Formats: sequence, structure tokens, C-alpha cells
Amino acid sequence: MSAIESVKLTSEDTLVILDQTLLPGEIVYRTLTTQEDVWQAIVALQVRGAPAIGIAAAYGAYVELVRHPYVTVAELRQTFANVKAYLLSSRPTAVNLAWALERLEKIVQQPRANVEDVLQAVRTEAEAIRTEDAQVCEVIGRHALTLLKKEDGILTHCNAGGIATAKYGTALAPLFLGNEQGYSFRVYADETRPLLQGARLTAWELQQASIDVTLICDNMASIVMQQGKIDAVLVGCDRVAANGDTANKIGTSGLAILANHYGIPFYVCAPTSTIDWSCQTGADIEIEERSGKEITDSWYEQPMAPPAVKTYNPAFDVTDNALITAIITEHGIVRPAYKENLAEHLQLT
Amino acid sequence: MSAIESVKLTSEDTLVILDQTLLPGEIVYRTLTTQEDVWQAIVALQVRGAPAIGIAAAYGAYVELVRHPYVTVAELRQTFANVKAYLLSSRPTAVNLAWALERLEKIVQQPRANVEDVLQAVRTEAEAIRTEDAQVCEVIGRHALTLLKKEDGILTHCNAGGIATAKYGTALAPLFLGNEQGYSFRVYADETRPLLQGARLTAWELQQASIDVTLICDNMASIVMQQGKIDAVLVGCDRVAANGDTANKIGTSGLAILANHYGIPFYVCAPTSTIDWSCQTGADIEIEERSGKEITDSWYEQPMAPPAVKTYNPAFDVTDNALITAIITEHGIVRPAYKENLAEHLQLT
Repeated sequence: MSAIESVKLTSEDTLVILDQTLLPGEIVYRTLTTQEDVWQAIVALQVRGAPAIGIAAAYGAYVELVRHPYVTVAELRQTFANVKAYLLSSRPTAVNLAWALERLEKIVQQPRANVEDVLQAVRTEAEAIRTEDAQVCEVIGRHALTLLKKEDGILTHCNAGGIATAKYGTALAPLFLGNEQGYSFRVYADETRPLLQGARLTAWELQQASIDVTLICDNMASIVMQQGKIDAVLVGCDRVAANGDTANKIGTSGLAILANHYGIPFYVCAPTSTIDWSCQTGADIEIEERSGKEITDSWYEQPMAPPAVKTYNPAFDVTDNALITAIITEHGIVRPAYKENLAEHLQLT
Repeated sequence: MSAIESVKLTSEDTLVILDQTLLPGEIVYRTLTTQEDVWQAIVALQVRGAPAIGIAAAYGAYVELVRHPYVTVAELRQTFANVKAYLLSSRPTAVNLAWALERLEKIVQQPRANVEDVLQAVRTEAEAIRTEDAQVCEVIGRHALTLLKKEDGILTHCNAGGIATAKYGTALAPLFLGNEQGYSFRVYADETRPLLQGARLTAWELQQASIDVTLICDNMASIVMQQGKIDAVLVGCDRVAANGDTANKIGTSGLAILANHYGIPFYVCAPTSTIDWSCQTGADIEIEERSGKEITDSWYEQPMAPPAVKTYNPAFDVTDNALITAIITEHGIVRPAYKENLAEHLQLT
């Protein structure tokens, strides 16, 4: 399995992240010491991937909290409220950000004797979020692997790998796990415009693990499916609504439609932390829109479109639950009808 | 209408092309004087677009032919056979290349008194190919416009504009024409990886004509359809089989599947010169595969994928005829069943 850890808390109460914007050319770790550092790192996608964002937010809140002097626990609680609101504003679509900060909030609100005890409990909870995520990813990998055959061709989009989580990844976890067990997957990685997470991150992570990976442009997904190269599509997600509608990296909904057309199973790997019961359907999920410069200018020697061209740059789209063959969580495999089966799945835990 | 002419024969019997690889940053015309120049310009995509490739090949053959001394017409015919074989090897998918060179071959084989007469006839035929293409494109535009409403949202892929043809374009012709008549289309242009013909060429041509154009990444086609922004998809083509299966820029087949899923009409603009009766179905169409460096390195400041990553870079894909709402030629609008209706359509001419 991939052993790269992209988000770590140090013994000096600083947060160290792998700067994912510089991969695969440079492997640079950055030390973040304030909430502003963390906010900026999330906005700039130095730390990215729904689970990793949640972990970074939890650690980031702790790192900011310990910087301030408090006389009372009430003061600390007020500071936490400000930090939470601030970090929540960094990215709207990944629910893990809110989920992690709400876990910390519960801890902060619990009665404790003094400020030191609260800070210690927050640190413990943030560490638990990370540790649990690594376990969750490993278990998702084990469940998802039961859906795959030894020589399957797999298509994946964006990066749902180890660096997008505490460890192992979500959609890539079964690939790392199967690889250890002698499976010989042939993986096709969409490059994932505009920010090329597939080319820069997924191809790199799979290559590091000696898994057979072929990089394609996003618009080549149809031809590789048509040619019989793909036996399953595996993707991660940023938010799952109560009815199974799933927000994930832009382009995912198109892949699901293609897979459906070609009769290929389409699997979403989703830690239960990405299920948002407050969203009835995908229509309730806010889609982040980012700067058009990401399309026209990013990575290029010079702008590749005419000056002042209009752009539209949604970072995510919503896949209709009817197109999803199964959702794989740390508790197992959920199939349609999702509204009923997701609810039942989580009550069983 | 777009008045840019991307391929011209000069009075000195040289070929001048607009170098499309430098757009939109630089507008550079290149003078080509040998078959090697022409072959290289086609391979490097300095001249591109199925109709424009056909015109460049016809002019290119003439430019090469006039460089040689001949004692007999038979010698000229032998030289033409060599030139034809050589230029045909530049790109396999666009049928117009073969179609244009076969038109010249018929001329070369006709009985004529002397070498000068043959050369003059070849020049005239090459000029006719260009002139006819401009007329064909304009008429395609007129027919296609009858399928559109004044405020339609249009999605297009790659570049089927004026610079891909003698003039006006194929899929973009109705947009230029409608714009002149006061239509207010909202056009969404797929950037079209890996070579960005949509960003560099289509966005630029439409902007030049003051048509409302929004640039998106290829993987955003699903979300703009889902959001109701698109009323019709318009694409060009490189080769149409007898049953209506259509080879066009990679990604086109995926767009057709998406349009079908969302109930949006999908139109192919095809001069009859792109219909290849020798191909019964799309399975008979050879798909050009290009260097993976186009995916990993093109336009970038530095390679955007890990070193030595495997790639797959087919330049075209085949859209199943069942997904095509109509094929628009210079003779009108053809609807399914294509095998019967295309044959009937062309016999009527």
C-alpha cells in the first residue's frame, strides 16, 4: 500500500503538509503554523482530497487554538467558533471539512476542568480523525477489492489516492491492496483538467507502487471503454446526498453516463464521513466555481486561449444516483435503492 | 462570416499556410515549397481540419509536381504517383486527404497533349477543390442553421471553423451565418485536449466574429448539459462510414453519449467529401495514434506527469450512428436510418 502521509501534526504543534501542487516534479513539505496558512493551503489545493482536507482542517484548528492565551474555557470556545467559521470558508463542496470541525466542536463544548484539558482533548480528537481515516480507507479498499477481478482494467478520475486521505486513499485503496496480493490491474488514469490531479498525482502514486498505469486525457474515457479496456470505473467523492447523488471532481458525472452506456460498473468509494444527511439530493450540494485562469493559464508557458475569453470552471459535478452501481463505505457495499439502503447501512453500524 | 483563409496557393506556385500551432498567440503564415514541407506541416498540425488538409494536399502535390523537369507525360504521372503515396502517409484518419489526391489523379490520368497542359489542369483542379469547399461550407451552414433557434446554447468540440476548411468552417458555419442574421447564440467550446484546438482556435475564431463563446474543459460537457445550458451539439468530422458511423476528434463519441443521455440533439456537419463508401462501418476506419508527449509535455513549462509514465493518445474516436440526430451535408439534412438515407441523399445529387 501507499505509505505516503500528506498531512501530519508535529510535536511542536505545527502542521506539515505535502505540497500537492508541486507534484510530481518536486516533493516539498510545508510547515503551517496559523489558521491563515491552513486556509491558504486548502484554497490553493496544496492539500486536497476530501478526507485530507478534513484532517488538515482539524489539525489546523488545533494549531491555531494553541497559539492563543486563554483565561477561561469560554474564551477558548469563542476562539474555536471563529476558527471554525474561517476554515469552513475555504472550500464549499467537500463535506469532510465541516464534518471534522464539527467533531472538534463537540469536544470543545464538553465540560472540562481547564483550558489545558480542552486543548489536549482537541489534539486527541484531531489525531483520532486521522487515524480513523487511515483505517476507514484500508477497510474500503478491502470491500471494494471483492468487486474486482485479478486482471481488470480500471478507469479512475482525479486523485482518490493515499495523498488525498490519511493513507491508502479511497478509490485507489483496492488497487494498492490488490497489487500487494498479486493482482495485475491495468489502470487508466484520466488526467483531470484543469488541474491535472490524475496526471500529476494518480499516475505518480500508482507508478510509485509499481501498478500498471496508463495516462489518458479526460476525453479519451469513451474510446477506452468502447475498446473493451475497462472493466470497472472507481472514483472517490466529496459529498454524498441522502439519496446517493454524489458530488465529485468535475467530469465524474460524464464518466458515469459513459460507463452506463457501455454497461461497465461504476463504483463510488465513500467514507461515511462524506455522506451528508442534510442534503436530500444532489441539488442541495453547493458546487464550487473556481477561477477561469485555471483553464487558460495553469501550468502553461503562455496563456492557451485568446485574451479575455469567457470561461466556466466548476470544480465538481453531481452524479445521479441512478448511474452508480454501488457505493463502498467502511461498513461494506451499498447498492440501490440508495435512499433506503444508505439509511439502513448506517443504522447497522 | 469568418474570412480567414488558412491555405492559399501563390502566383509563384508555392503554398502559404496559417500556422495553426501558434494560434492564438501569434499569427504566422508559412511558405511551403516541397512535398516534404507539406508533409511535415500536416503531421505537425500546422495545417489541420479534414477539409483544409485535403486542400493543402492538393496544392502540395501541385507545388511538388511543378518543381521537376519532365520529358513525357508518363514521367509526370510517375512523379505524381510517388507524391500521392508520400502525402497520403501524413495522416490516416481524415478521408479528405485521399479524396483530394484521387481527384488530382483522375486529372493526371486524363489524356492531354503535353506536360504543361497536365500541370495546368492539376492547378485548376486543386483550385476547384478549394473553391468548392468554401461553397460547400457555406451551404452546410445554411442547412444547419435551420435546425437552430435564435438563442440556442451550442456545444462544440475541437475546431470545425473557417481555418479547418477553405472558409466558413463546417460545424461553425451556421454560427457565423446566424450571427450575421442577428442570432444570439451562446457557444460553449470544449478546450479539446491534448492539443487545445477548442481553446486556441475555436474560442479565437468565435471571439473574432463577436460571437458569445465560453471556454470549458472537456470534462465539463456533462455539467453544462445537466444545467440546461446546451440546446444542440455541433461537430465536424474526419470520415463518415456508409452506415453513418463518424470519426471525429477524440472525445466526440463521449459527447454524443452525453447528449443522448440528456436528450440534446447531436449534429454532425459533413461535406460529402468526408463520406467514405469503402468503410461499411466505423470499425473500418483507421484511428491515428499520436505521441504521448502531446499529453505529458505539450504547451507546458515542464512535464506534468511522472517520467516514463505510459500514455495512450488516440487522435480520433468513432461515434455510433445511433447517437447522431442528423448529418448535415452540402445537399441537406440526413436523418436515420443512415445506411439507406445517406445512399439516397447522394444519388439525388
